[in-house]
Amino acid sequence: MKIAVLPGDGIGPEVTAQAVKVLQALNNNGLKIEMEHAAIGGAGYDAAGDPLPEATLNLARQADAILLGAVGGYQYDTLPRPMRPEQGLLRIRKELNLFANLRPATLYPELADASTLKPEVVAGLDLMIVRELTGDLYFGQPRGIQVNEAGEREGYNTMRYAESEVRRVAHIGFQIAMKRGRKLCSVEKANVLETSELWRAVVIETARQYPEVALSHMYVDNAAMQLVRNPRQFDVILTGNIFGDILSDEASMLTGSIGMLGSASLDENRKGMYEPIHGSAPDIAGKDIANPLATILSAAMMMRYTFGHDGVADRIENAVKKVISQGLRTADIYTPGTTRVGCAAMGDAVLAAL
Amino acid sequence: MKIAVLPGDGIGPEVTAQAVKVLQALNNNGLKIEMEHAAIGGAGYDAAGDPLPEATLNLARQADAILLGAVGGYQYDTLPRPMRPEQGLLRIRKELNLFANLRPATLYPELADASTLKPEVVAGLDLMIVRELTGDLYFGQPRGIQVNEAGEREGYNTMRYAESEVRRVAHIGFQIAMKRGRKLCSVEKANVLETSELWRAVVIETARQYPEVALSHMYVDNAAMQLVRNPRQFDVILTGNIFGDILSDEASMLTGSIGMLGSASLDENRKGMYEPIHGSAPDIAGKDIANPLATILSAAMMMRYTFGHDGVADRIENAVKKVISQGLRTADIYTPGTTRVGCAAMGDAVLAAL
Ligand SMILES: CC(C)[C@H](C(=O)O)[C@@H](O)C(=O)O
Ligand SMILES: CC(C)[C@H](C(=O)O)[C@@H](O)C(=O)O
Repeated sequence: MKIAVLPGDGIGPEVTAQAVKVLQALNNNGLKIEMEHAAIGGAGYDAAGDPLPEATLNLARQADAILLGAVGGYQYDTLPRPMRPEQGLLRIRKELNLFANLRPATLYPELADASTLKPEVVAGLDLMIVRELTGDLYFGQPRGIQVNEAGEREGYNTMRYAESEVRRVAHIGFQIAMKRGRKLCSVEKANVLETSELWRAVVIETARQYPEVALSHMYVDNAAMQLVRNPRQFDVILTGNIFGDILSDEASMLTGSIGMLGSASLDENRKGMYEPIHGSAPDIAGKDIANPLATILSAAMMMRYTFGHDGVADRIENAVKKVISQGLRTADIYTPGTTRVGCAAMGDAVLAAL
Repeated sequence: MKIAVLPGDGIGPEVTAQAVKVLQALNNNGLKIEMEHAAIGGAGYDAAGDPLPEATLNLARQADAILLGAVGGYQYDTLPRPMRPEQGLLRIRKELNLFANLRPATLYPELADASTLKPEVVAGLDLMIVRELTGDLYFGQPRGIQVNEAGEREGYNTMRYAESEVRRVAHIGFQIAMKRGRKLCSVEKANVLETSELWRAVVIETARQYPEVALSHMYVDNAAMQLVRNPRQFDVILTGNIFGDILSDEASMLTGSIGMLGSASLDENRKGMYEPIHGSAPDIAGKDIANPLATILSAAMMMRYTFGHDGVADRIENAVKKVISQGLRTADIYTPGTTRVGCAAMGDAVLAAL
């Protein structure tokens, strides 16, 4: 298993280091894991003048899986757009064809208090958002800012999906639903957008191959409501890039602890990039207070989705559950009566629990 | 004051009837209000084969303000797209140039329990979303479904904003902020979309004329999170058509009682269309159990925004507060210990409280 480790910016390096310790321990345990590090985001810009240096992209291409920390920092905000950290992220997704973004929103019973929602609304929450990641407004051409006929500046972007793009991510959605609660809700805006009309038609066609999955359709505005009203009605949500960006952030916040949520971005062959959903949090970087569990759980997803080692994934996830039930907490999830620990100590605790 | 009344479908007619009673009472009280009814949505299709019959559009053009119920019903779901009820809504917005959609999300203290969020998170919630309503993906050209070079179907829509479109709605946003908490948060996705980059630039330019308003910017994914995490950080949210569609529905659900929320859609001259944010709810139509308060509050917004009768608007809003504090509840907001009333009885109670 060749893993490219891209720590990135802010708290990225310190949380990634904890996940690397976990992977290293698995290595000593018989799995053959090779890891190599490279720079991305602001760190890539600092090192090579590019948020996705060529050496990093090459390493990522050769790897079977990628572990990413986070990108972004105030000092890069004034750079021209192509040099900004998030462009490194967008480009690696596109270059490696990582079209299926899996974002679980899972509530740990011990952390239910952290949610701003009432416990009876979110208890047991366990939903999976499958977001298309290489199409839509993010990459559609034409795009730009131009002066129009009236002599005014005008900004434009193109929402665009070809049926094959919808079909391949729909398959991923249905396959994941088959391993979970066998319910898939496809979210779009087909009452207004032709792109969504096609999306819906292709999802319906694809569904024929998954007769055991109960398929429903929901408009994106209603989905944003229903996530607040009754999030447990959902099992798998399948949606496009921009709607998925919005809904997955909303869904993750329902748990109240985004320091606990990992994600996967997969290509056609299950090669994948794995990263916590939280950002680079530059204000707390280097202070050993960040929560490494989302990154460690991303490593678990890597074992499950890219390497097919469900057992290993379960072991990592159970180790995380154990440290939580032991009452260990980083600052972001701390409540009185629990034991506050730093980033590295939390990583060590997971190692011990493994 | 010439008002076009467009009851629409489902519960539209019954909730509109209650707001009409309230306007009628104001009329008897000295205001000169003329009302005329016409069909829209499914009712328009049934009456004239068109979700926005020409007679309706003409009436709406001649009116100073429009009171709309709701549109939509299962029996219209299989019609070709241009005949569907929501097309009536989209067309009247565009034809009348109703570019500024005002959607308040206000929590009534007595109804705080209805929220799925913890009381301490939403107590006193009072935010206003100003959504652009006649541009963006909703109306951008080109759009459609075509077969691409690879021989596949491909759906596409265009996100597009000219600077004048951004500027005029930004002015509305700042003016409303001036009358409220003087905070405006502009929401877009400028880290990815050029349309958003222009949006942000124009909002910053416009802000110079409102030095007393504290302006901030937020990416739409973060805004969807922050609405769940801490919705009271917001005063006015200014955003585009599609992001506003999603965020305003999310925000309204934070209150737990969308039967209580009205909305306004204004043109350059403060002519406006006023409607409850809830839908046509065909399953409860005609049973006299719908909540008419959102429509009555929409009539209050009409008095405020189109006719500049702030005092009259206050009176209506206070009458609604009074019936709520009297413990009167329609089914959607009923809790044990309160008094359940029907749609017409709720309208009568507001009349009495006036
Ligand atoms: C940083 C940004 C470009 C990115 C996106 O919009 O996809 C982020 O919000 C995410 O969801 O991973
Ligand atoms: C019915 C639909 C076309 C409409 C919209 O998307 O604008 C509705 O969701 C709204 O927000 O008023």
